[in-house]
Amino acid sequence: MFGHYLEILRERSALVHNITNYVTVNDVANVLLAAGASPIMADEAEDAEAITEICGGLCINIGTLNRQTIGAMFAAGRRAAERGHILVLDPVGAGASPLRTETAQALMRELPFAAIRGNMSEIKTLATGSGTTKGVDADVADAVTPDNLERAVSFVKAFAAEIDSVVAVTGALDIVTDGEHGYVIENGRPEMGRITGTGCQLSALLTAFLVADGDSEHRTEAAAAAVATMGLAGEIGWSRMRPGDGNTTYRNRIIDAIFNMDGPTLDGGVRYREMIEREDG
Amino acid sequence: MFGHYLEILRERSALVHNITNYVTVNDVANVLLAAGASPIMADEAEDAEAITEICGGLCINIGTLNRQTIGAMFAAGRRAAERGHILVLDPVGAGASPLRTETAQALMRELPFAAIRGNMSEIKTLATGSGTTKGVDADVADAVTPDNLERAVSFVKAFAAEIDSVVAVTGALDIVTDGEHGYVIENGRPEMGRITGTGCQLSALLTAFLVADGDSEHRTEAAAAAVATMGLAGEIGWSRMRPGDGNTTYRNRIIDAIFNMDGPTLDGGVRYREMIEREDG
Amino acid sequence: MFGHYLEILRERSALVHNITNYVTVNDVANVLLAAGASPIMADEAEDAEAITEICGGLCINIGTLNRQTIGAMFAAGRRAAERGHILVLDPVGAGASPLRTETAQALMRELPFAAIRGNMSEIKTLATGSGTTKGVDADVADAVTPDNLERAVSFVKAFAAEIDSVVAVTGALDIVTDGEHGYVIENGRPEMGRITGTGCQLSALLTAFLVADGDSEHRTEAAAAAVATMGLAGEIGWSRMRPGDGNTTYRNRIIDAIFNMDGPTLDGGVRYREMIEREDG
Repeated sequence: MFGHYLEILRERSALVHNITNYVTVNDVANVLLAAGASPIMADEAEDAEAITEICGGLCINIGTLNRQTIGAMFAAGRRAAERGHILVLDPVGAGASPLRTETAQALMRELPFAAIRGNMSEIKTLATGSGTTKGVDADVADAVTPDNLERAVSFVKAFAAEIDSVVAVTGALDIVTDGEHGYVIENGRPEMGRITGTGCQLSALLTAFLVADGDSEHRTEAAAAAVATMGLAGEIGWSRMRPGDGNTTYRNRIIDAIFNMDGPTLDGGVRYREMIEREDG
Repeated sequence: MFGHYLEILRERSALVHNITNYVTVNDVANVLLAAGASPIMADEAEDAEAITEICGGLCINIGTLNRQTIGAMFAAGRRAAERGHILVLDPVGAGASPLRTETAQALMRELPFAAIRGNMSEIKTLATGSGTTKGVDADVADAVTPDNLERAVSFVKAFAAEIDSVVAVTGALDIVTDGEHGYVIENGRPEMGRITGTGCQLSALLTAFLVADGDSEHRTEAAAAAVATMGLAGEIGWSRMRPGDGNTTYRNRIIDAIFNMDGPTLDGGVRYREMIEREDG
Repeated sequence: MFGHYLEILRERSALVHNITNYVTVNDVANVLLAAGASPIMADEAEDAEAITEICGGLCINIGTLNRQTIGAMFAAGRRAAERGHILVLDPVGAGASPLRTETAQALMRELPFAAIRGNMSEIKTLATGSGTTKGVDADVADAVTPDNLERAVSFVKAFAAEIDSVVAVTGALDIVTDGEHGYVIENGRPEMGRITGTGCQLSALLTAFLVADGDSEHRTEAAAAAVATMGLAGEIGWSRMRPGDGNTTYRNRIIDAIFNMDGPTLDGGVRYREMIEREDG
C-alpha cells in the first residue's frame, strides 16, 4: 500500500524548498535526491518567497533558527500558503528553548501546515505549551512503548484533530494520524538515534511524498509511507553494516537504501497497524 | 594534456577562499583537499576581505545567498580583484529567483571573473537576462545533446567572448571555452545529478586549478582539466559502486577518486574534442 | 588510563552546545554521537543562551564567525560561565585575519575556558598576539617535531599556566597541558590533514570528555584522553582503508572507529609520554 506513494514520488518527482538547519542540510538534500525528489534551499526572506513559488512544497525546520531565517520562514510560508503548496513543520528542539517553542507555535498559528513531524517531546510541547525536550532528543519519559501506546495514540489523534493537520510522532514506534484515522509503524532501529539528522531527513522526505501525491484525501497515507520508507531504510542500511562500521557509515547506508528502494520492497518490509476508529473515537 | 594541470595543482597546492552555500560546503572543502588544494571559508564582509588576501583565489557560489553574504561576496571580490587573484563565479539558481539572477549579474558587472561555471539554464540566464532554471537544476529543454551541441557551443563561445572570461557549462556534455577556443568534454555520468553538490565542488576545484597554474595563457586548458577531473572521477567512482550502494556512497567515491587521481590517469581517461576555430569563427 | 575517561563518557553521556562553523558541523554532531555524547547547535544569541542552560558544556569554534554568531558566542559563553559549565575554545584561523584573532582574544579575556584546542600557529597567535596561520592550517614553520619538542612543550606549558586553562596543541605530535603537568601524544596520521574538520571534531569531543568527567582535578587527563581517542581513531580508520578509498571514506572511518572504540582499545593503542615536572618547572 505504502509502496504506491514511493512509486508516485519516483514517477512525478517533487521540488521541495527547505528552510532548514545547517547541521543536517546536506543529508536532507541527498535523501530527497535519493527518493527521486529535488531539493532547493533559500533562507533570505526575499529569495525564499521567490524560490518557494517554483516549488511544490516547503519544509520548515527550526533546528538552527535565527532572526533572519525566522523572517524567511514566515515570508516563504505565507507565500506557499497563498499558492496552496504543501507546508510541513519540523519543530526541532521545541521545548528546549523559548525561542524555538514560541517560533514553532507562531508558525502553527499563522500557517496551514499539511503535516507536522517531531519526536514526542517536541509534539507535547506544541500541544501543551510546555515540554521537557532534552536538547534535540525526546525526553526518555516521553518514549512511546507498547505499554503506553494506546494513550500516546489518543493524545496524538486529539492534537491532530485540534490543529487539523497530519501529525507524525517518530521514535521506537511511529504514530501518523490526521485525528481520525492513522497508522502505527514499527520499522526502524534504535541505532538511528546515533546519527544526526534522521528526523530532519524524514520531514523533508514527508514533504516530497505529500507534494508528489497531491491528493489531500490521502495525506495521512502518503505521510505514513514516508515514515515507513525511512524506518525500513534504517533496517536495510543496518543489515549492510560490517564489523568496524559505525554511525557515519550507517548514515550513508540509510540514504543509499532509499536510493535503491522501490514500491514492492517497501510493501514487503513495512510493519504497521492501522488505527481502529472505534478504539479512539 | 589535462593531467599536467592536475599534477601542477598537486605540486604547488592552492589556498582557495570559498564564499559558498551551507548545503554542500563540506564536500567542497573535502574535494579541494582531495585534489591537493586547501580550502578556507569566510563570509562576514570584514573577515572575508582579510581571508581573501592570504588566498590565491576566491570562488563565489550564490547557492544560499543572504544579505550578509552578498555583502561579503562584493567586499572580498573587490579585494581579490585588486590583488589580481583568480575569481570564479558559480551562479547557483540564477534564473530561479530575482535575487539570484540580479546578484549574479551585479557580481559579473563589478568583478573580473577568470571563469564562470554553471548549468546551461544558469548560463543562459546570465547571457540573456532571463531563464527557466528549475530550482538548482537545468531545465531539460536546456540539455546539451549531440544534436544541439554545435548551436550550444556557438552560444557559449559568444557569451565567453562578450564577457571576456572562461565559461564552463556542465551537463551531459561539458563545454569549456574562452570565446576563441575551447573543449567539449564527454566524461561524467548521469547519476552525478542524483548527488547534491557536484557542481559546487567542480567550481571550487576549477578555482584551484587556475590558481595553481597561474598562467593566464592556459586558463581554458586548466579549467577544462578541472572539468575533466570531476567527470572522470564520476566514472571511476561509479565503477567502484557495489550492489546496495546509492547516492551518498557515490558522493564519497567521487571525492575518493579525485584523492587518488594522478596526471596519467586523467590523461588516460579523459574523452574530449577541441573546438575547431574555423567552425565558429 | 585514558580509557577510563572514554568509558565515563559512554556511561554518563554529555549534552554539548556547539557554536561552530557550517563547514564541518555535521561531522562534529556525528562524532559526538559516536562517542556517546549528544550535540546541539544554536547560534542566535537569545536562543544560544537558553540552549546552553540545558547543556553541560559549550564549545565555541570561530571557523566561520560572523557578527551574529560572535554575539551568540559571548552571550552563551557568559551564561555557561555563570552556570559553571565547561567552556572550550577552538580558535580556527586565529592569525589568519584580524577579526578571528581579535575575537579569539576577546573571548579569552572574558570567558573562563576550561580548555583551548588549536594548531600551533593558532595557539602562538593567542599567546603572542600575532601569528602566521596559513588559512586554517598551521604554518609548516610551526610544526612540532621530535627535534623541537622540548621547546614546544615549554612554550605551551607557559601559555597554559599564564591563562590558567588546559591547552591542547595538535599536529604530528600533540601536547596537552595545564601548565604544570601534561602529556605528549603520538597517535594520529598525517592523512588526517587531508580531511576537513578533524580539529573541529576533536574540540567538540574534548568538551564532551570534560563534561562527562566533571572533576576539575582531572581535566588535563580527560582532555588528553579526547586527543588520544581522535588520534587512535585516525590510525584505526586508516587501517580499514582499501585500494581506491580516499579522504571522504577516511573521514567516515575515523568517526566509525570512535563509534566502536572502548576503554581497553584506547588504553591498548595510545602512545604517550607524561611530562616530567623537573624538566620545565
